[in-house]
Amino acid sequence: MANSSSLPEAELAAFVAGLRIEDIPQPVLHQAKRSLVNIFATALGGCRQPAIEVALTTLSPFSGPANASVVGRSQRGDAALAAFVNAMSANIFDFDDTHEATIIHPAATVFASLFAHAEAARAPGAAVLRAFVAGGEVECRIGNAISPSHYARGWHITSTCGVFGAAAAVGSLIRLSPHQMLHAFSAAAVQSSGLVEALGTMAKSLSVGGAARNGLLSALLAKNGLTGPQAPLCGQHGLLRLHSDGVRVEALTGRLGALWEIGENTYKPYPVGVVVNPVIDACLQLRERDRLSLAEVASIEISGHPLLRQRTDRPDIATGREGQVSAQHAIAIVLLRGRAGLEEFSDQAVAETLAAGRPRVRFQDDPSRDIASIALTARTRDGRELAVTIPAALGSRKQPLSDAQLEAKLFEGARFSGFRGEVRRLADALWRLEEAEDASQVIRLAAGPA
Amino acid sequence: MANSSSLPEAELAAFVAGLRIEDIPQPVLHQAKRSLVNIFATALGGCRQPAIEVALTTLSPFSGPANASVVGRSQRGDAALAAFVNAMSANIFDFDDTHEATIIHPAATVFASLFAHAEAARAPGAAVLRAFVAGGEVECRIGNAISPSHYARGWHITSTCGVFGAAAAVGSLIRLSPHQMLHAFSAAAVQSSGLVEALGTMAKSLSVGGAARNGLLSALLAKNGLTGPQAPLCGQHGLLRLHSDGVRVEALTGRLGALWEIGENTYKPYPVGVVVNPVIDACLQLRERDRLSLAEVASIEISGHPLLRQRTDRPDIATGREGQVSAQHAIAIVLLRGRAGLEEFSDQAVAETLAAGRPRVRFQDDPSRDIASIALTARTRDGRELAVTIPAALGSRKQPLSDAQLEAKLFEGARFSGFRGEVRRLADALWRLEEAEDASQVIRLAAGPA
Repeated sequence: MANSSSLPEAELAAFVAGLRIEDIPQPVLHQAKRSLVNIFATALGGCRQPAIEVALTTLSPFSGPANASVVGRSQRGDAALAAFVNAMSANIFDFDDTHEATIIHPAATVFASLFAHAEAARAPGAAVLRAFVAGGEVECRIGNAISPSHYARGWHITSTCGVFGAAAAVGSLIRLSPHQMLHAFSAAAVQSSGLVEALGTMAKSLSVGGAARNGLLSALLAKNGLTGPQAPLCGQHGLLRLHSDGVRVEALTGRLGALWEIGENTYKPYPVGVVVNPVIDACLQLRERDRLSLAEVASIEISGHPLLRQRTDRPDIATGREGQVSAQHAIAIVLLRGRAGLEEFSDQAVAETLAAGRPRVRFQDDPSRDIASIALTARTRDGRELAVTIPAALGSRKQPLSDAQLEAKLFEGARFSGFRGEVRRLADALWRLEEAEDASQVIRLAAGPA
Repeated sequence: MANSSSLPEAELAAFVAGLRIEDIPQPVLHQAKRSLVNIFATALGGCRQPAIEVALTTLSPFSGPANASVVGRSQRGDAALAAFVNAMSANIFDFDDTHEATIIHPAATVFASLFAHAEAARAPGAAVLRAFVAGGEVECRIGNAISPSHYARGWHITSTCGVFGAAAAVGSLIRLSPHQMLHAFSAAAVQSSGLVEALGTMAKSLSVGGAARNGLLSALLAKNGLTGPQAPLCGQHGLLRLHSDGVRVEALTGRLGALWEIGENTYKPYPVGVVVNPVIDACLQLRERDRLSLAEVASIEISGHPLLRQRTDRPDIATGREGQVSAQHAIAIVLLRGRAGLEEFSDQAVAETLAAGRPRVRFQDDPSRDIASIALTARTRDGRELAVTIPAALGSRKQPLSDAQLEAKLFEGARFSGFRGEVRRLADALWRLEEAEDASQVIRLAAGPA
């Protein structure tokens, strides 16, 4: 075996262990705060869903002393429970941030594990902000190294890579040594799991919650002396080769400290699989520009990235969760209601499009497009052809949501779940996170009044 | 999608949900009790290892009310913690049961999750015995369906399949409906993880412990309403295809209720990777028959199953954990000491063979052999060639340990870790498990005096 310090995972571990907030450029820190506003928005939006209730009911008897907040709820738990449930809430609608190169939702497991431990440990805001950047960096670089084959094969990359993000984030917060950080990666590697097959079901959220909890525990286990293989990622039977047919090892450490993956993050305007975003933009245009109604549509043709077809050609779905990854439902509900908020992807909304009839959709794969771009043609029953081209969906890197739009999303998430806390104060605290002496003040604002 | 009730995972779930102890033949129940005596032996043997201390230290703050026993220790925890730690202890030396067709160690995650929940719930012994059979059955059938490619690729099959065993066992104990059992499988599927790269390190035990805890929680989550995909195993992106290059779906349900996988279990005489067993037998013979000493050996040649070379050609290892999967260390220590107990695979014993010099070993792959069979030739410094053939290692299916040898292993495990409880009473309670009104009496005997 090569000297362990020359291995890419050891270099990445040393980078995270040594990272100081002064090493992170201001624009990157601002991106991190945008990501935090967005993730609290989606966690607030998701915190009352049935899967969250099931998880809280089942896991609460296994909680130690309740020193960590659960977003949007008065109930508290230990840091492991809070990490689990808050990651679930944040990602349940797939409405959280998206790292375009990998389609990871990086923030869910990172913010959840991080704030859970930070609250229990009363860590300062600046350390949390640094650790948040560190976690996303590790998570997305590992994702880059195994993409695109990993997700295409059927691994739920937000879960499989999310456990590394959580481990790195908490590891940064508690200042693991380079050696300990490497072994936190080992601990995360043996717990990495998650299946695309579970998309659109409660079970998807289970691997996301587990990744947050297991990443947190990985860092704490490494702190207490747990060790693993020297090459958990790049070894002969390491995670990378097992999880990908085309490993790009150089992605782990290339331009480390110069190129920041959080700059690749995007924030969604609609609570759907990211590949559906341009479809919704197109249908909103058809409704506004052409006054097109669902009843008039005979069929739809979409030219898009192959993942659009692979992930969202689901005409016969029955639940809100499935509706979020169904192009057919998205098209129908937007043409019916003229909007695409959280209410449009409920069980009720899905029943509505089933009753109204979802349009027949023909997908044309165009691998030259990125996932934010489509051309859509609607054929009407009276023989018209209405064409819309979306070169870059709202929320994509070329059309990012503004800071104000992200704040509006935070208020909307809170409204959706009936949150009665002080959203304005939460937004302000997040934009000034590095000034907080104790980050528990911030996460407590998200838990709302007792 | 096919009707869900026609899917193999649905059939398997229905089988487990409907299983009664009267459906299980007496010889199978006796095999289950042999497996239990063996797993308590290895859990008692492993319960004082450093990885267990790290896990207990790290996880105890995250334990709810302590209503479950930790094997060999006075400390208690909630069922999730007990399941985690007891599975780690049982498997830490790879001294637990081995399902020969897959090289799964089936009992560790099953017994740990099962007794943890049974104690908390005060379940009767007969239900625990039935559920133990059910858990191993599911675990090994899923293993069969993805073998041999799964383990060969580098998945730690005891962990990846162990989570299903735990879910099925606890699911049987708490009497999940067929529908709930299917979704317990879904919950297990999204949490299935573990890497061969971690063999010989503490991190291996982490995925085993996690599998026990996560399997337990999968059953409880399903009971509380968590649902997942209809085809978590056989779906397009289901676990089987992701985890194997050669799926054998028919293994999931073929001869279900007629052929019992626990009958394929074997119990080890030595605390080493199962493929090393015949190597130890051969070296014990060389020492006894030929009075061969380590100092006399010039080189060793072994013809064996390819897994012997792939997993155990490790001449340069430095720790007891690594020593258990090093043919070179095993040969050296047996020729030095004339025995192969737990003390022979400690850090100290490994230092001893390093100092004495481990022999050079040449491996010849012979895929026609099973893993219990080798031919070994020792060349001595004075030019002799000593040959030994082991057609079936002690502990293999053709040379199983007797019930009395299993009991002796239980006493030996207790002795190794300085256990001060009543081993005789524990053995008797296990052989009569189905008579216990409350299985908590049994697991408490394994925890020893407070």
